[in-house]
Amino acid sequence: MPKVVQPVDISKEENEARKDYFDRHTPHVICENSAKTGEKFKVKVMMGENYPHPDDHDHYIQYVQLWNRETLLAEARFTAGALGNIPGHVEVDFNIVPSGSMILSAMSFCTKHGLWQSENQEVKVS
Amino acid sequence: MPKVVQPVDISKEENEARKDYFDRHTPHVICENSAKTGEKFKVKVMMGENYPHPDDHDHYIQYVQLWNRETLLAEARFTAGALGNIPGHVEVDFNIVPSGSMILSAMSFCTKHGLWQSENQEVKVS
Amino acid sequence: MPKVVQPVDISKEENEARKDYFDRHTPHVICENSAKTGEKFKVKVMMGENYPHPDDHDHYIQYVQLWNRETLLAEARFTAGALGNIPGHVEVDFNIVPSGSMILSAMSFCTKHGLWQSENQEVKVS
Amino acid sequence: MPKVVQPVDISKEENEARKDYFDRHTPHVICENSAKTGEKFKVKVMMGENYPHPDDHDHYIQYVQLWNRETLLAEARFTAGALGNIPGHVEVDFNIVPSGSMILSAMSFCTKHGLWQSENQEVKVS
Repeated sequence: MPKVVQPVDISKEENEARKDYFDRHTPHVICENSAKTGEKFKVKVMMGENYPHPDDHDHYIQYVQLWNRETLLAEARFTAGALGNIPGHVEVDFNIVPSGSMILSAMSFCTKHGLWQSENQEVKVS
Repeated sequence: MPKVVQPVDISKEENEARKDYFDRHTPHVICENSAKTGEKFKVKVMMGENYPHPDDHDHYIQYVQLWNRETLLAEARFTAGALGNIPGHVEVDFNIVPSGSMILSAMSFCTKHGLWQSENQEVKVS
Repeated sequence: MPKVVQPVDISKEENEARKDYFDRHTPHVICENSAKTGEKFKVKVMMGENYPHPDDHDHYIQYVQLWNRETLLAEARFTAGALGNIPGHVEVDFNIVPSGSMILSAMSFCTKHGLWQSENQEVKVS
Repeated sequence: MPKVVQPVDISKEENEARKDYFDRHTPHVICENSAKTGEKFKVKVMMGENYPHPDDHDHYIQYVQLWNRETLLAEARFTAGALGNIPGHVEVDFNIVPSGSMILSAMSFCTKHGLWQSENQEVKVS
């Protein structure tokens, strides 16, 4: 079964190729850490920080998913070439409406390097 | 085969229920009308303008797609409840990288009322 | 907005390249024409009859959808290479459970040649 | 981040509710254990063996995926109601074309109970 790669602390990697490999495949959930019940709340899902990922036809990020604990809230899927076939960072802003406190995370799928998970992002909802 | 509902000029509709029906099911592509080759370009896909759509388990917007002419660039899919199970507007920001001039459009699928298309949005790319 | 290509009568096409183009992009719904309420009912969605479609990374069938009138029942999505990167026919068997008479149809998306529809397939359900 | 539930040996569970819970959420890959390079090869993905899963609007199997090691080959997505809103077994037959030996597995997502994995299914390809 596919391994789900967990996020690593890239600052502790010394090998440049490994830094690149881990950074460009790791999805991040970027949002405020508090929200209001019933109000629109923007959540960015973004791949990588410093290292861009290819957008080649045989090697691209096919999807990113936004999870709240065990529930899939939303996902974005891409056709290769949507990033111009040049290396870049997949970046999508979802707008969700929370009904209670959340532990958000993201998963992503690279057509060559499999399934990856983000760190958790807790959001207090009042 | 499913009918693909085309956008109508809602200002010409007199019946409130029809205004609501057409407005809340129509996707819109919202972006600048010019872009630079090879640079990140933000494109919002949004459902409706004045009338919100339900987010009920048996009646919700399951997906919106972003097209460039005949090519699907990206799509966002939702689980019912991602908008808090209250009426609202699906709204997602994609970031694409153009490699030539584009004619963007959106399609959306409502689990009760089928497949809908947006107006075209031309983008000059230099 | 993307054009949805309708099925044509290929027997009336004389040009071999056009026969190939239309045949290999046209999805078909293949099933019995009667079913029982509440019982499992197999529905095949298949691309083309005589002409296979490429499964290249930059040119493949990304998805096929199974519709009942205006309702999307199910869809199958593919990564390029799932057909071995050689020309073939996408073919997937869904098992649905009808709750009333159906008018089934399929849509498919080719990453180079856009969105296509099948003929309707009526199913009497008793 | 979402937990990915691994398959358990249900014969060792004594509690009926737990047998039901594990059985109905576990996807299975069902196929021959040998295949020919370049030839169509049928792979069934099926949920559960003895216990059916609900197909309610707020509780259904939203998708099943077919993986070869770290590569997603294909997935099937469902709208609630495609199984008639009565308990049943999601069952879909993909046809893939192998280009080398495979370790197949499936993942599934239940809108209430998250992400699940199958046992591996090895396929020798000659």
